[in-house]
Amino acid sequence: MKIIPGGVCAAKGFKANGVHCGIRKNHSKKDLALIVSEVPASAAAVYTTNLVKGAPLLVTKRNIANGKAQAVICNSGNANTCNANGIEIAEGMCALVEKALGISAGDVVVASTGVIGQPLDITPIAQHMEQLSAGLSEDGSSAAAQAIMTTDTVDKQIAVEFTVGGKVCRMGGIAKGSGMIHPNMATMLVFITTDCAIAPELLQKALRGDIQNTFNMLSIDGDTSTNDMVTVLANGMAGNPEITAEGEDFEIFMKALNTLTVALCRCIAGDGEGATKLLECTVSGAADMATARTVAKSVICSSLLKAAMFGADANWGRVLCAIGYSGADVDVSKIGVSFRSPKGEIPVCKDGAGIPFSEEIAKEILLEKEIEILVSLGSGDCTASAWGCDLTYDYVKINGDYRT
Amino acid sequence: MKIIPGGVCAAKGFKANGVHCGIRKNHSKKDLALIVSEVPASAAAVYTTNLVKGAPLLVTKRNIANGKAQAVICNSGNANTCNANGIEIAEGMCALVEKALGISAGDVVVASTGVIGQPLDITPIAQHMEQLSAGLSEDGSSAAAQAIMTTDTVDKQIAVEFTVGGKVCRMGGIAKGSGMIHPNMATMLVFITTDCAIAPELLQKALRGDIQNTFNMLSIDGDTSTNDMVTVLANGMAGNPEITAEGEDFEIFMKALNTLTVALCRCIAGDGEGATKLLECTVSGAADMATARTVAKSVICSSLLKAAMFGADANWGRVLCAIGYSGADVDVSKIGVSFRSPKGEIPVCKDGAGIPFSEEIAKEILLEKEIEILVSLGSGDCTASAWGCDLTYDYVKINGDYRT
Repeated sequence: MKIIPGGVCAAKGFKANGVHCGIRKNHSKKDLALIVSEVPASAAAVYTTNLVKGAPLLVTKRNIANGKAQAVICNSGNANTCNANGIEIAEGMCALVEKALGISAGDVVVASTGVIGQPLDITPIAQHMEQLSAGLSEDGSSAAAQAIMTTDTVDKQIAVEFTVGGKVCRMGGIAKGSGMIHPNMATMLVFITTDCAIAPELLQKALRGDIQNTFNMLSIDGDTSTNDMVTVLANGMAGNPEITAEGEDFEIFMKALNTLTVALCRCIAGDGEGATKLLECTVSGAADMATARTVAKSVICSSLLKAAMFGADANWGRVLCAIGYSGADVDVSKIGVSFRSPKGEIPVCKDGAGIPFSEEIAKEILLEKEIEILVSLGSGDCTASAWGCDLTYDYVKINGDYRT
Repeated sequence: MKIIPGGVCAAKGFKANGVHCGIRKNHSKKDLALIVSEVPASAAAVYTTNLVKGAPLLVTKRNIANGKAQAVICNSGNANTCNANGIEIAEGMCALVEKALGISAGDVVVASTGVIGQPLDITPIAQHMEQLSAGLSEDGSSAAAQAIMTTDTVDKQIAVEFTVGGKVCRMGGIAKGSGMIHPNMATMLVFITTDCAIAPELLQKALRGDIQNTFNMLSIDGDTSTNDMVTVLANGMAGNPEITAEGEDFEIFMKALNTLTVALCRCIAGDGEGATKLLECTVSGAADMATARTVAKSVICSSLLKAAMFGADANWGRVLCAIGYSGADVDVSKIGVSFRSPKGEIPVCKDGAGIPFSEEIAKEILLEKEIEILVSLGSGDCTASAWGCDLTYDYVKINGDYRT
């Protein structure tokens, strides 16, 4: 498993592009992305569990019901959600891809991200389709990653290389997500491409299994968005024997996918709205996976802990408090907590009670940009991690007036 | 039902006091409160559902298991939670009341609020018991209310007068709570006193019923504290025939209690850490109470909506988003939303989609200090309200470095 450049175009046969079409007023901000496979690909996706679902999700779900897709179109600046004509516009975007590239509208993944409840005008998209498709290239991952950003401050891309059935395969992804992030079953917008050959059912199985430990363990602000989705297109151009059953090849594929998704989770958490720190809570010694996940996520979601981390304050009582209200069945008297960063590790709680520690050393550790909160439950062998960020003045600033 | 002055001393036979004993470093901040009834009283309480429970809660629970109590002692500045000797200290505080006033230690409600996980030294409390009890008076409600404050910016008191069985009764309460507020079954610290005669079982029933629609519908930051409790002492000195069964008198008692608790909820929400606005979300047209409560609370808890309210931004999409992920079974296509304040009311969403509205008028409405978010579900007759506050820079500031 090797990290490689190229993002969503790292895999053979994928091109991408991103342009400014005018949905956003800021001319220097790209707002329309396109990703295309040379040949039809196996497709899988997971979606938000929010009852209020963006129209693009409904259209995408229908389009990939047959397990196939060949292109992804996505705009930022407008979520196309809670609009009377949302479905019509989302279908219109797919039709524009068909017209520009000859790919059937029914083979297009469509996504939108941005403000909810404002009608999306398709005109600027239509006017820029020629520019968008003419510029498709194997170097286009960055442009596409930039075009799906909303309040993100950096584009998010990653790619890996691995071997399946004697063939070198590649998998890459781009993601956007900064606020309204508290995934449930799916998350934010993440587009993954691979040239590995894999049957649609196995692809869906891999994705659904992976997100339980990755995107579903990520929270910026506790708000589950209406437009979250993660999709994978696998076009088989690596030439490996198609993965059609679980086994060694599937395991390798799962590992590649997990490497990618964990990296993207960390990118998203570290770039959470207003964030100055990436937080990772790892819970070990849990009696079962559900407990480990519940506890890790509860800690990562605590506004009080997030604010304490912003202030580099080793207020471990807030960690215990969050464990206590998580709903998980834990033995409080066995809980241990320590904080870790590149500056070192400091235990602060043992057997559910405080232990003496140097506030100075704790401060030095917590002033770093990446903080691990290590919780041991002393009741079993299961471990899970969750990712988030600190709560800062800038989160409030960004969200106090997002629409203007 | 009449609002009267006097707070926790409004009812006959109750005295209170609050002093600075030295748990807090700031000499101008009182940190020890005492409330005493002239005669033994019926007692009821509800407690946090957090698995990590403050030692004082465990001692209080044991002390009022017989339905009786006569005094309340409470310190701020230290939660006496997650300490190896917590129970011993909490029992010690009850013994100090016995020594000072001759009230059995087993008839004392004990509470603590403040930082978790730092040993509580009983010495300053012991040293100030004489001053505390010598100063007990019928004018002592404010002193007690001030002594239980942590990050609260104002003390919280209210009292009402009502008639039961031809006798004038009074009920009053004090509350503290500003952060770590997301009650579950109980909340924050609230001490209520009444001279109305009521049997302990009925008192407990009244309290447990009431909090479902009051303190359990309040959220500042989604963190359920380890030390939340609400207690009521009813000493019967109004001379009414004791309420021993449900019926007209019980209904009147419930109404008085509800008037008090709703007022305290509004006080707490409006004084949420860093808050500039009180938010009240009222959900009507729900198919059942559970749905109404779930939706109201989900809206009030949304960090994104809270930040939007801080910015006076009518970003109603975030209301819909929060309804959608609440877990309640609602028909999105029937949802209506409007914002209301003393400046007027503005509908912003109908049938699950946006409607044109004047951003200027919306801004004017949302710049007020008390904002109502009115949600109609169009599916039944049930209504519930939840209370909270906006998310501000100061919340982050207060919690970024709470311990210092």
